[in-house]
Parts: sequence; C-alpha cells; structure tokens
Amino acid sequence: MTDRPPVRVAVIGQGFMGKAHSLGWLRAARLERTRLQPVLSVLCGRDQAALRRNGALYGYARTSSDWGAVVDADDVDLVDICTPGSSHAEIALAALAAGKHVLCEKPLANTLGEAEQLARAAAEARDRGAFTMVGFNYRRVPAVAALRELVASGRLGALRHVRGMYLQDWLVDPAFPLTWRLDAAQAGSGALGDLGAHVIDLVRHLSGQEIIEVVASLETFVKQRPVLSSGGGLLAQPGRTGTRAVTVDDACVALARLAGGALVTIEATRMAPGRKNALCIELNGALSSARFELERLNELHVYDPSGTAGGFTTRLVTGTDDPYVAQWWPPGHILGWEHTFVHQFQDFLEAVAEGRQPQPSFADGLATQSVLHAISVSAATHAWVEVPTGPGSGPA
Amino acid sequence: MTDRPPVRVAVIGQGFMGKAHSLGWLRAARLERTRLQPVLSVLCGRDQAALRRNGALYGYARTSSDWGAVVDADDVDLVDICTPGSSHAEIALAALAAGKHVLCEKPLANTLGEAEQLARAAAEARDRGAFTMVGFNYRRVPAVAALRELVASGRLGALRHVRGMYLQDWLVDPAFPLTWRLDAAQAGSGALGDLGAHVIDLVRHLSGQEIIEVVASLETFVKQRPVLSSGGGLLAQPGRTGTRAVTVDDACVALARLAGGALVTIEATRMAPGRKNALCIELNGALSSARFELERLNELHVYDPSGTAGGFTTRLVTGTDDPYVAQWWPPGHILGWEHTFVHQFQDFLEAVAEGRQPQPSFADGLATQSVLHAISVSAATHAWVEVPTGPGSGPA
Amino acid sequence: MTDRPPVRVAVIGQGFMGKAHSLGWLRAARLERTRLQPVLSVLCGRDQAALRRNGALYGYARTSSDWGAVVDADDVDLVDICTPGSSHAEIALAALAAGKHVLCEKPLANTLGEAEQLARAAAEARDRGAFTMVGFNYRRVPAVAALRELVASGRLGALRHVRGMYLQDWLVDPAFPLTWRLDAAQAGSGALGDLGAHVIDLVRHLSGQEIIEVVASLETFVKQRPVLSSGGGLLAQPGRTGTRAVTVDDACVALARLAGGALVTIEATRMAPGRKNALCIELNGALSSARFELERLNELHVYDPSGTAGGFTTRLVTGTDDPYVAQWWPPGHILGWEHTFVHQFQDFLEAVAEGRQPQPSFADGLATQSVLHAISVSAATHAWVEVPTGPGSGPA
Amino acid sequence: MTDRPPVRVAVIGQGFMGKAHSLGWLRAARLERTRLQPVLSVLCGRDQAALRRNGALYGYARTSSDWGAVVDADDVDLVDICTPGSSHAEIALAALAAGKHVLCEKPLANTLGEAEQLARAAAEARDRGAFTMVGFNYRRVPAVAALRELVASGRLGALRHVRGMYLQDWLVDPAFPLTWRLDAAQAGSGALGDLGAHVIDLVRHLSGQEIIEVVASLETFVKQRPVLSSGGGLLAQPGRTGTRAVTVDDACVALARLAGGALVTIEATRMAPGRKNALCIELNGALSSARFELERLNELHVYDPSGTAGGFTTRLVTGTDDPYVAQWWPPGHILGWEHTFVHQFQDFLEAVAEGRQPQPSFADGLATQSVLHAISVSAATHAWVEVPTGPGSGPA
Repeated sequence: MTDRPPVRVAVIGQGFMGKAHSLGWLRAARLERTRLQPVLSVLCGRDQAALRRNGALYGYARTSSDWGAVVDADDVDLVDICTPGSSHAEIALAALAAGKHVLCEKPLANTLGEAEQLARAAAEARDRGAFTMVGFNYRRVPAVAALRELVASGRLGALRHVRGMYLQDWLVDPAFPLTWRLDAAQAGSGALGDLGAHVIDLVRHLSGQEIIEVVASLETFVKQRPVLSSGGGLLAQPGRTGTRAVTVDDACVALARLAGGALVTIEATRMAPGRKNALCIELNGALSSARFELERLNELHVYDPSGTAGGFTTRLVTGTDDPYVAQWWPPGHILGWEHTFVHQFQDFLEAVAEGRQPQPSFADGLATQSVLHAISVSAATHAWVEVPTGPGSGPA
Repeated sequence: MTDRPPVRVAVIGQGFMGKAHSLGWLRAARLERTRLQPVLSVLCGRDQAALRRNGALYGYARTSSDWGAVVDADDVDLVDICTPGSSHAEIALAALAAGKHVLCEKPLANTLGEAEQLARAAAEARDRGAFTMVGFNYRRVPAVAALRELVASGRLGALRHVRGMYLQDWLVDPAFPLTWRLDAAQAGSGALGDLGAHVIDLVRHLSGQEIIEVVASLETFVKQRPVLSSGGGLLAQPGRTGTRAVTVDDACVALARLAGGALVTIEATRMAPGRKNALCIELNGALSSARFELERLNELHVYDPSGTAGGFTTRLVTGTDDPYVAQWWPPGHILGWEHTFVHQFQDFLEAVAEGRQPQPSFADGLATQSVLHAISVSAATHAWVEVPTGPGSGPA
Repeated sequence: MTDRPPVRVAVIGQGFMGKAHSLGWLRAARLERTRLQPVLSVLCGRDQAALRRNGALYGYARTSSDWGAVVDADDVDLVDICTPGSSHAEIALAALAAGKHVLCEKPLANTLGEAEQLARAAAEARDRGAFTMVGFNYRRVPAVAALRELVASGRLGALRHVRGMYLQDWLVDPAFPLTWRLDAAQAGSGALGDLGAHVIDLVRHLSGQEIIEVVASLETFVKQRPVLSSGGGLLAQPGRTGTRAVTVDDACVALARLAGGALVTIEATRMAPGRKNALCIELNGALSSARFELERLNELHVYDPSGTAGGFTTRLVTGTDDPYVAQWWPPGHILGWEHTFVHQFQDFLEAVAEGRQPQPSFADGLATQSVLHAISVSAATHAWVEVPTGPGSGPA
Repeated sequence: MTDRPPVRVAVIGQGFMGKAHSLGWLRAARLERTRLQPVLSVLCGRDQAALRRNGALYGYARTSSDWGAVVDADDVDLVDICTPGSSHAEIALAALAAGKHVLCEKPLANTLGEAEQLARAAAEARDRGAFTMVGFNYRRVPAVAALRELVASGRLGALRHVRGMYLQDWLVDPAFPLTWRLDAAQAGSGALGDLGAHVIDLVRHLSGQEIIEVVASLETFVKQRPVLSSGGGLLAQPGRTGTRAVTVDDACVALARLAGGALVTIEATRMAPGRKNALCIELNGALSSARFELERLNELHVYDPSGTAGGFTTRLVTGTDDPYVAQWWPPGHILGWEHTFVHQFQDFLEAVAEGRQPQPSFADGLATQSVLHAISVSAATHAWVEVPTGPGSGPA
C-alpha cells in the first residue's frame, strides 16, 4: 500500500449506486492523484446473500446490516450513503453526529425540510472538521468541468439561454414493474428528483447563478404498473399481485429564470424512447455557446465565433491539460461513465486532506432541493413559483 | 411552354421572401409534377430601382408599386403576399374580395383580430372558388412530410413529449441595426412570430393536435439598437441618428400541452450564438421517437426500438419513395432550403387544380395565431393561459 | 430580361445530366451574379417524345435530334455536352471546330487518346476565343471552394495524407438492370470514371498537386445483370432477353502519391450499402486537417489545433463571406446538390465574359484522364504505374 | 476475497501498457463475471523508483527487475508482457518454457521469424496446458464484438469492401522527441506495427477471413527528431544531444484482398492532425454495411436497408444483451477505453478455466505479423506481395 493517510469508507447500500461507488473507491485507491488512501472498510446492506457476495467481491474488511452501528463504528471515517432518498436524512444526521465525513447520493433528501436540516447539520459538522458532499457526480465529467471553466472565464459572455434535459426511456414499457424509484414514499419524486436534480445542479454549477423562479408540469403517463413478488431490488409485496399505482412523476418540464436574467428550460423524463441516458445541456451567452451530452461524455461542443472558422468545435476532452485527465491515458483514449465517481471521490478526499469544504456541499444540495420543491409546488398550483435563496448564497 | 392551364402570379414584396418566392415560382414552372403553369405576372414593391432590376431579373411580365391595383388586376389569378405582417390583412382581404387565390407569408397576421378576420374571409372566398394558404414552408421539407406520415401511421405511438426549438444568432451582435423585423408596429412580434410561429405550426401539423394551454416568457436582451439612415430594407429614419428601442422580443420560451396530453416545450430565439437556422423538433411517443433539424434538412432521425438494432436511424430523405423527392434527383443528391417553396407552390396549385382547400389554410394560420397570442398574454400576466380552440377544429 | 449580353446554350442530352444542366442554366439566368445572360436555345436528344416534353417544360427555343447540325447552328454560342462518354470527343471536337464554347460533362473522354485530342483542340480553340470546361461540378460546392482556399492559404501545412472516397450503393441489388453506365463501349469504365474521376479531380484541385503514381484494383462483383427490353435510358436490346455481362468495374481502390510526397488513398464504388452519394475527402497536413462529405455538402470540418479549443469545427458554409453564398440566402439556409451546376455555369460565363480560360479546363480533364488510365493499367498489370505529367503542368 | 481459484499474475513492464494492464487486472478481480481470481503477484520493471511507487500503488505482492527470475517464479501463473516488441519473443519463450500462461501485447513480435517461433512454442505449450493470447484488446470493445456477431450472422452478406484506418496525431509536432516507439531496434516498426497491427487484426477478426495479398507504402515524414537526455521512457543517450534519425515509419497505406475477394484499404498514421485515437473500420457487404470508430467506442453504426427506414442506425452498445455489458451499468452509461483490458483478461481467464485456447492466439498474432511483414516487403519492393497462409488456417 501507499504511504498516504488512510480514510476508511463505509458504503451504505449495495444496489446500482452501491456498486458504482464500491468500484469507484477501489479505483481511486490505485491512482497517484488520490490524496488520501481510501480503504473499503464496511459494506452495509439488507440482502444478506448479496452482502456476503458483494463484500467478498469488492474486498470490504467487513459487512453489516446495521447502518446505525456502522456510522458509529471506530473503523469508519467516511460514510457514503447510497440508499433511497427516504433514508438519507436519518443516516446522514447520525453519521455527522458521530463525527464522520459524509458523502450522500443525490438528491440530498426527499423533502425540503430534511434538506434544510441536513444543510444545518453539515455546517455545524464542518466546524468540527467533518465534511460533507452531495453526489452530483456529473460535475466530475472532464468535459463538464471544462465547460464550467469556459463559462467562468467569460468566454461565452453573459448567459441568455440555458437548456437542460435529462432523457431516458426505461419506463416506456408499461410492463416494467414498480421499483422503489416509482414509490413516492421511498424516492420522493420520479424523474424530477432522479434526473431533474442533476439538471438543476448542473445549471447552478455551470452558470454560477441561482434559479430564482420556476413554472413546471409533472406527468405520470403510465399510472399503474405490475408488482413483482420477488427480489432484485423491486418493490415486492408478499401476498399481493397485480398492479399498483405509480406515485411519482414520469416526466417533468419547467421554465426557469437565473438570477442574472437568463431563460432556462428544463426537461427530465423516463419516457423518451431511444434516449438511454441523454443528459444534455446547452448554454448560449452574449458571445458564444457550448453544449454537452452525457451519452458522448468525452466530448464538448464549443462555438467558435471567429469569422472564417465559425462553427461548433467538437473537442475530445481527453487532453493532458483537461480536468482530471492527466492521470489517465493519452489523448483520444476515452473515459466512461464510472470515472465520474473516481473523480468525485478524489475531490472529496483532496478537500478533506486540505481541511476545506468539498463541493457540492449540503448547502448546494439544499439549493437544488429548493428548486425541486418549487417545481413540485408550481406543478400542483399551475403557477409560477419563486425559489427562495438564502442570504449571500450562490452556487459552488 | 407546357399545355398546363396557366396561373398568373403577383408577388407582393421583393425582400428576402419576395426573392425566395420569385425563384420558387420560376422553378415550380419547370417541373412536371406542377399541375398548373405558374406565370410570373406582376412583381409589386416600393423601391423603384430594385423593382426594375428584380422585375427584369426574374422575368416578370410587369411591375407595379400599387398593390391595390395589382390585387384587382385582370392579369393576376393568385396573389402571393411577402410583405411584413402589418400589411398582410389589408392586402389579403382586398385580394380575396377581388376573387384571387391568396398565399400569405407567415405569421398570418400581427394580431389575433386580423387573423380571425382573415380566416372568416378565406372561408367565404373558398365557397366562391378562391383558395388560400399560409406560408409555413417547412411543412414541405421532405423529411418533415415523412415525419408527419410517421406520426400519422401510429408508429411513434401516442405522443408524450414534443420539443420544438428554432434558434438563430443574427441578433447576437448588439451593433446589428434595427430593421422592420425589430419593430412591433410592422412585425407584430420578434422571435415569437418569426420563429416561434414555425415551431407552433409544426407542433400542430406533426402531432395532428391543438395546443390547449401555454405558459411563456419573452425577453429582449438588447433593448436599444442603432438606426441606419439608409436603405437595404432597414428602418431608416431621415434626420435621426443614434439608437432606438427594440420593440419586439429577442427570445421566447414556453411550456404547452397538446389536447392529447403531451408535454410541449417551445423555444424561439435570435440570440443563440452558433445556431444559424436551427429549427429542431423531437417527438417522443409511447412506442418510438423521431427528430428533425433544419440545418440538415435532408435527414430524419427515427428511433428503431427493435432489440438488436436499437438506436436512432439517420435517414437521408432523398429516396424515390420520399415525399416530393421523385421529381428531383437520385438518392443522396440533397435538396436545399429553397426547395420548400417549390413544393409549397406545387401543393397550392394542385389543390387549386382539384378545387379543394390547400393546407395550411388561413384557419390553420388563425390557430397558430391564437397560440402566439396566448403566449404573449402569458408572458405579460406571468401565468398559464388557455388557448381557445374552435368547435370541431383540429390542425390540418 | 436583363441587359446582360446573351449566351445561347445548346444542351446535348436529356437524361439525368441533361435535366440537371437545363434547370441549372434556368436558375443561373435569374441571378445577379451571372455575368452573361444564358438563353436556352436548343435541347438535343434522341427520344422524340421526351424531347418534345422536355423542350416545352424547360422553355427551350427549339429542339433537335441532330447534334451535328446543332453544334454548327447560328443560334448556339455554347455547347453543353451531357451525353455518355463515348460521344464526348466527337461532339466536342465538332463544336470547337464550329467556334463554339464547350462545356463537357466528366469524365472528359473514354480513352486517354481522345482526351489528348480534346485538350489539343481546346488549346487551339482558346486562341480563337472559344473556351472549354469539364463538368467537375463538385469544385463549385461552397464548402469545397472554401476548402481549396484553406489549403492554398497554407493553414493545413504541407499535405501528408489525402483520403478520397466516393461511395454509392445503387448497384447492390443484383436485379438492377444493365444501363449504358454499365457498358464499357458507352461509359468507358464504371465506378472508376463515374465516381473516381470526381475524387481524382478534387485531389488535384484541392492539393494543387499532380498525382504521380498509382497502384489499383478494379472489381466487378456482380458480373451479369438483366437486360430490359424497353426504354428509360436502359440498354434495350430488341429480341434479347435474360442477362448480359457487365463490362465495367463496380468498384475501384487505389493508392497514389502526390508530387509533393503526400500519400493518397482513393476508393470509388457503387457497392457500399447505405452510402447514397458519399463523396468524402480528408486532407491531413503538417499543421492541420480538414474534411468534406457530399451528403452534408453545406458543412466543412476543419481541425482547430489551438490548445484549449482543439477539435474539428463543423462550419456551416452558408456565411455571406463564403464562396458563391452571398447571392443566395441568409446563414443557415442550406443549398442543395443542384446549386453546384448554377455556380459552374456562372463561373464559365464569367470567364467567357473576361476572355480567360475557365477552370477546370480540358487540360485538367486530360490530367484526370491520365490518372484514370494509369489506374486501369495498374489494375490490369497488378503493378505500380507512373502517371506522365506534361511539362510545366499542374492542376488548376 | 471470493472463492474463485486464484491466478497469480506477473506484469512485465510499467509504462503505458503496464499501467493499463495493472489497473485492468485490478478491476477484473472485482467483477462477478471473472471466472478465476486474478492476483497481482509481481510487477517487473527497470526503473527502480517507479517500480517501488507502482508496486505499492497497484498493490502488487512484490516487485522485481529480473524478468528471467519472474517468469520462473513459483508465485506466478500468468506472465503478462507489456514491454517493447524487441523483448517479446525472449520473455514469452522463457515464460512458456516455465509452463506459465502468457499474455503478450501486440504486435506479437518485431520479426516474422520471432512470431513463427512464438506460435510454435505456444502450440506446444497448449498441449501442456499453458495458454497464450495476444493483446489485441480492441476485439473486446462491446461494439466490436457486436460487429463481429453481425458479420458472422450473415446480415451484412458477403463482404465486398473493408476500410480500416487508425489515425493519430502525436507525431505531428516535429519537436516531439525520439522514444523507443520511434526506434526500429526496439519497436520493429512505427505506425505499421503499433496501429496497423490493430487494423489488420480487426480486419481478420471481423471478416473471418485471411488477407491474401497486399501492396503498400510506408513513409517517414519527419526524419530527424530531438533526443532527450533524461528519462520518462524516452530514448536517452548519455553524452549525446541534438537529433537522431527516426528509424520507423510515421505512416502506412495499403491495399489488400481478403480470401473471399473483398477489397481492403488500410491506413495507419501518427500524422493526422486532430485524429487522436481514430481507429475506424467500415465493412460493406452484399446486403448491408456497418462501421465502428474508437473515439466513440460505445457506438456501432449499422445500415438498415429496409425501405422506409433506410439509413445508418447509431446503436449505443450499452444494452444488457450486448457483449460484456450486462456486468456493468444500465443502458446509456458508457464504458471507456480501459474496459477493453478488463474484458480481455476475463476472456483469457475464462478460457484458462475451461481448458481451451483463448483468442486471439499466438497463431493469430503470427497471421497478423505475416501481413505486417508483407506490407514491409511491398513497401520496399514497390510491388504487390502475397501473404502466405498456413494450411487450414483462418482467423479466430
């Protein structure tokens, strides 16, 4: 092992995100740029068979089904929460109370109240040296980081339009069964919190501005779905068969305004056939434009307004000067979706090593939650809704 | 000349649209598919020098600066109105009163009241054998026509999302001067009526459904522009220099609902650097998706949901079975923007030859105008606005 | 009509090219940039019914089936040869002898000997004020003209690689019948002369260098095809049915060297499923690269090697500063394939008006023919073949 | 750890490939699909400081600078050779003699003689239960594996054209210094063996056919390069400064024929500005076509020849049915370049677990080496060269 100070990680959850995080921590441990040495200490989950299998597969020191004990345990420095949103607040608050660093998957919480509570707790914890981060991993796509630098440099000029979409199609099939992600009690919302949260975080992050008002519609196109009676992360209900109501939105559309006046359009849906993981964002400024698409995440499209070469330039963001890239491969050797987690963990550890707040903080998570909340209210009231922004706040 | 019955055309206006129409009529005259023989009879405009030059260049039988006389003249069967929106109603009503067929550029009018008046007059004229059409030429892009067939065939399934954008960048430069298009008195609105009207017409046309409610924002990012003191179609003001207020919108964003429940997002802007003529429309249905982009107007992207070949197929809509194409060139020999006018004129003449109403009718123009009006009201009131739809109406 | 001096045109041939040229001359006549006024004087063809129909449709002053009389006629200033290659030499030589300007479709001839004879006759005719041009219309795509300017400006640096392909798929179906294009006696060669000729002309034109040696393979994948017993431009053989041998190549691949040392690869095929009209050319220089694709002919892809913006820029070559474009439409309103003919005719007429040699000349046509010949010899001998280049020659 | 039988791996070399392999083995160890448990036993290299650092970083059990001892060691089951080509034969032969499984980076050897010797040794070793594989990792891109299945299924029909290119630009800068890759003594050849070898392997693999003859040119555009006097894998020469001759090719172009008659074009260059890692392959068959590009390695473009939907479909090869994918992420969550190594190692281990020959074998490596050799001979003799193919051979 390297002589970097170790950080012992507990991952809570072993589903899709639990796997992505476990593999991400393992990879981060093997890169020079990683400032502290992550050590897979505890994997925490409820499915015992899976827990045994995953614990061995990923090489965790131990496993547990008792998250309460895990967040208190001596062999844990950092708690990484990969559970459904309904449990974020309880776990994160306990972990912060125990003095642990906390990485929490997005969205930060299922309700605005929980998010506010978490942001307060995080602010207090920070003063005691415990740091927090929300898992908006797409900030760590090299092309997204390059895009943020581009906006911040002023090269686009004052923003006028921001167009953010996150389109998927995994709910198009009406026979697709209910999972926890379609249950409001567990997931809070549907496309809004799952996909829209990413869009909102990126709009804030890339623009450097808060969203100040929204108007939105939510829709559930398939209102009933089959219930499966057995496992695989699905919402099993022993003794019940047939279908149950989908209690979250399939799709969300919204208009918004940035503090600086830019017009924003937002779409999030799981009902766009052919769009597998199409997070797309375009920014038009007074001088130039740029856009990004997650399905081709190694590329950034930047408008070159110069006379004879005007047009969008497709940059392959794999150059040695590009964010995060130098530690990987030569130009043109593309990275994948999962690399975003590696970068996220590296950034978290670097901030911890330097004793400073990582980004996006729980305050950022709260700001996004405020927009999610305003969108829900707008959809319910069929009216524009202002988004309250704290004093002196602004996106990181 | 061919032995087709002639239709003598008067084109009113000799600016951008006047040129596009003149060349389009000339080309339509030389194609076998054209059912009646268009004859360039009168070119009508105010700039005398340009009128002499253009009349000779395009081979008009005569020119005139008196549109009132032209619409009444014996050597005119069809009046083609290519003037700013403020004069559409007066000219079209006079032409209809004189028993002429009327093709009117979009948007149909500058106000809802004018549009209603025009739709009524058109309905009456039709009973007397005079037909009307609004110049939503993008319906005549072969790929758009193919897309409409695709939607109508049910292959996409019930629509859930429609995403329509028309992005340009010719106003990004704040030194770009005021023209009639930036003057509310002449143009009615800005990006909304110029670009948004196309989007709305295509949403109606492709979906086969009416828009029933909207919420929207309008914005004028550059509020003052220089006034030029001389010609070229610009808003000259002898004796005045400096700048004047822009009285139309630079950009419009809107959410909408189709009668069938689909969520619609609409954007129209002249402020998107790098987007030269980016009319883009995507439809997501319960079964599949398709999209179209005007800057690559020969292509149609259709999602193939079949198992092993899933993905968007880029069809080059230049096959001999594709709409309008057989009269042109072999597959792969692409058409340009101006071909849309040729197809539009052919369709108009074909309807006239067959004694049936061409599409889009003035009633369609009115329906689009109702949406434009609702958008304006929504932007002014900062609230959702219902779009009234006539009894039994529906888009053609 | 305008007061431009007229040039009376006779078009020989009424097939695919005859139609494209007829419509192109009509359009050129209606544009200000056109320096002389083209007048459609005579259409010449053999199919009498078609001749009557086409003559009326395009508005020719008269028609004829006797090309010998046409090239001598008093009402003809310019002879435009759109017949199969086997008749190019005879018609062009007669027209030049009669003192007419001659535009000859590509390839210039079916044999090297004919091409040499034509180049000599053209040189002599030029001294008498009769000009010639070969119809390599793709030089007149605005993006290709812009690409040539780019290479000539030195921005790409010394060329190292040139990659030229022209891929079509209309012969993939083995039931596609024999036409004159598949008959060596009429067409000379197959994909080589039809498609490869365009690639070779563009390699010479864009690089500004001669091809000095080649090695190549020719292949006929479908060796027998059905013979149709009736018209439509097909190779009818009264009294014969069934199939006959294809006597030309379906495909050609070649390596070559430019005089400056660059490596060249060339492909031409009618057997690439899905490639409808895929003329693609990429040039890699010591400093930068650029590429062009005919199916998206309004675009040019240029590598921007600058640090932070490195990547290929997709220029939409529809700007007012772009070659040929200012006379058409605003940026983003794309042109089609047929516009290349309009530009070609304009350039020919401009050269005639100025009393200078148009480009590409018959000497250029001969240079390309020399490469086609060398490719045929190489394929037959299975060896590298040097391409003789005349003293002081070089591509225009 | 899992209860899978362990395979103790020694990686020889710690440069670019040594890093890619080390990280790849680590990742393979953490995936369920991996049949045997790879254990990082020994890292072998010459730079002592780097060896200590890398050994700790990747978690190797030990390090060594004595490859001879490593290939004989009791704690090594599999030797993974990541050194320059000049040492492949010696190390691999020793490892095979010691009864180890051997994975050797491509190209298999620097000379045809070495490759023949290695293929013989591998065949003998196989009979003793020691297996071999050549590191043509691009066979393990999911889209490439899907493409192979497509060709093998007959859906493309009999192949007529294969177009393979591998374009990079890292040598465009003439100030780029000499490294071992530019030294014939170490690398054998330049673009030919480094990039061309991948193209040739993919042509063989995807077509399922041998290349039977070639004609080619090699070129070194920058003939002298600076020598650096210190480390970093560069060709340091104590006491010498200034420049030295580049002894390998910068670029290679070739024509070839497959046994089944298809025409093949091959290009490999490090001199194509803007092309970072552009391995592109297109296959045209009698029925359909497909193409792949490494810079967008998650995509496969397949022509859909059906009537109304004709066009190239861009499949995002991230579906759960796609090769290798099910063990990773949901559809649309793309993989990166390095995943190819993980898949390669999994396939090797699976073959070992099942006691069968992995693919590509050293016999495949020899077949590719025969083509590389024939290309070199062709370039030197300026003539077509036949490629000898063994009795009964054929690509795997």
